[in-house]
Amino acid sequence: MCQSSSIAVVCSTSRPDSTTARIVTLYREILDENHGCSSELLDLKELPHDFLHSVLYQKDRMAHPEWGFWQSKVDAIDKFVFVIPEYNGSFPGILKCFVDALKFPGSLRGKKASMIGISDGTQGAALAMSHFGDVLNYAGVTTLPLRPRLIEINKYWEGQRISNPIYQNLLAEHAKLTVAM
Amino acid sequence: MCQSSSIAVVCSTSRPDSTTARIVTLYREILDENHGCSSELLDLKELPHDFLHSVLYQKDRMAHPEWGFWQSKVDAIDKFVFVIPEYNGSFPGILKCFVDALKFPGSLRGKKASMIGISDGTQGAALAMSHFGDVLNYAGVTTLPLRPRLIEINKYWEGQRISNPIYQNLLAEHAKLTVAM
Amino acid sequence: MCQSSSIAVVCSTSRPDSTTARIVTLYREILDENHGCSSELLDLKELPHDFLHSVLYQKDRMAHPEWGFWQSKVDAIDKFVFVIPEYNGSFPGILKCFVDALKFPGSLRGKKASMIGISDGTQGAALAMSHFGDVLNYAGVTTLPLRPRLIEINKYWEGQRISNPIYQNLLAEHAKLTVAM
Amino acid sequence: MCQSSSIAVVCSTSRPDSTTARIVTLYREILDENHGCSSELLDLKELPHDFLHSVLYQKDRMAHPEWGFWQSKVDAIDKFVFVIPEYNGSFPGILKCFVDALKFPGSLRGKKASMIGISDGTQGAALAMSHFGDVLNYAGVTTLPLRPRLIEINKYWEGQRISNPIYQNLLAEHAKLTVAM
Repeated sequence: MCQSSSIAVVCSTSRPDSTTARIVTLYREILDENHGCSSELLDLKELPHDFLHSVLYQKDRMAHPEWGFWQSKVDAIDKFVFVIPEYNGSFPGILKCFVDALKFPGSLRGKKASMIGISDGTQGAALAMSHFGDVLNYAGVTTLPLRPRLIEINKYWEGQRISNPIYQNLLAEHAKLTVAM
Repeated sequence: MCQSSSIAVVCSTSRPDSTTARIVTLYREILDENHGCSSELLDLKELPHDFLHSVLYQKDRMAHPEWGFWQSKVDAIDKFVFVIPEYNGSFPGILKCFVDALKFPGSLRGKKASMIGISDGTQGAALAMSHFGDVLNYAGVTTLPLRPRLIEINKYWEGQRISNPIYQNLLAEHAKLTVAM
Repeated sequence: MCQSSSIAVVCSTSRPDSTTARIVTLYREILDENHGCSSELLDLKELPHDFLHSVLYQKDRMAHPEWGFWQSKVDAIDKFVFVIPEYNGSFPGILKCFVDALKFPGSLRGKKASMIGISDGTQGAALAMSHFGDVLNYAGVTTLPLRPRLIEINKYWEGQRISNPIYQNLLAEHAKLTVAM
Repeated sequence: MCQSSSIAVVCSTSRPDSTTARIVTLYREILDENHGCSSELLDLKELPHDFLHSVLYQKDRMAHPEWGFWQSKVDAIDKFVFVIPEYNGSFPGILKCFVDALKFPGSLRGKKASMIGISDGTQGAALAMSHFGDVLNYAGVTTLPLRPRLIEINKYWEGQRISNPIYQNLLAEHAKLTVAM
């Protein structure tokens, strides 16, 4: 039985067919198989199409029916796992738009989060996770110190699994520590 | 006569009626009055309404007529002034979405930029400018070291002018150094 | 009775007669008076005089008698409070030298830490705490999200007390959360 | 003939027999061979043995004869190349101590700098360069956007040369851009 309070895994980009989404799927399987934890999926690709115009930085955004649904999902979650690619030397803009649109401070304060950084190249989202760590800290979220950098990730796919044993171990260890936070 | 190559001043948030927009207007006046430099305005409030769905992280985004117009405006600019508020411990998400949607690396590489941080409170966008400095650096943009932090900005409005003489001097000095970059 | 495991408060500069040292003293009194917690003092001013030559980045540093004593003090502590001034846009160099000299990873991994930023001006060590947060995270330390920025601190001394009630409350809240970590 | 104002290459650690020192030597050869530029060497290993006690954060430090010599060398340099390893998630503490001891703001303001990050592992000093970029920016130094991350550097030594052609090209390009700043 899952020894954690409610967990959501966040696909931190809205890019179609992203590697990030594949890692999210894999991570949710690890949570399920290793720890018996079902998890919520927060996929930023599913944000409302008029998000920019009708939600972001709009005073009446909570009246937007789709966004209201996102907000209530976030309200119900205690722990977040952000899978983060690095775009242009930082986190994806859409990830920050998502945080900017949440009610402050009630949405995240006092909650917990962990991060996983991925990249095609060798950066491993080091800057993205440093920057987003500042965002989480500002929001009052306690973060897991272990922040795996899965570099050159696309070298290691074997179907829907990652063949690199170091990465397998890192993901398993990360899931274990996230459950135990 | 303006001693600078083409300058755009960027309103780095899409929040309606923002303080940022007021500083942008003021700064453009300083460029004009003190240096004879007319400047382009890039106001992120004007991004296409379907930006999130049709542009951001979409492969065929350059075919979007409105976005194509934004891209061509950026292509024609040599120097950018980013006026940046701090949202949730970093830059506004929309600012990063804007950068993420630009063609890489041709849009910004080899160009120049300066930043001004503003806040209602005492933070002065210190983290926002540090993070966005990493983004600009990644993009190959040389940045001005002077990054004014205009804290508690809303204490100092006198009509459309800022009454704080330290801020007046900082903005004038910043504009002078930006023109001379 | 103190409801915390062992706590050390770190004076993160070696500058003589520093404001940082005064805040450290005040904070230790709060821990004692409000929570019945006696705390260890780690004052970087007391590092060995030949630290740079005989300890830092030297393979045989653990044989240095004074440094061996520092290392054993750190080994015995579970929780650290870093009081950090901002020097030149980051934490004091001596603070990082101290961390660099500790045995890795055993000295800090799995422990807890909180930070307080102070400044004469308005920066409040925002960048110093962001950077040092990356160091703590790398070391495997869980950090408290609340990171007070005590700006223009030297306006508010009343003997050995801080007269600013907002700062008094922030320090009391910070101590309470640190004890409860 | 060298087309640059005076250049110093900084070995940003005082660790004996460091990889950093080897890259510094190699980089100075590139400056000489490719551009006819002789450069100054600033090797932090050579800082005074009593630096911590007699120089750092001491008001009368400029009277220290050895440190006075370091200060005058820095005063005479227009452009700095920092070769930076990442220690504990940031730049080496000794590098920041060095900057902290310099006269402010005259030592660095208005000057130019570039950085090269190296690592045994895959981090490539990404965080170290981000943090030190904030320090340089605060000091009023304009920095080169190109910040090579030479990861797993110790795989590629061939005598005193680097065998990896991508790294050879990056160092040559970096030297060229540094000379041209």
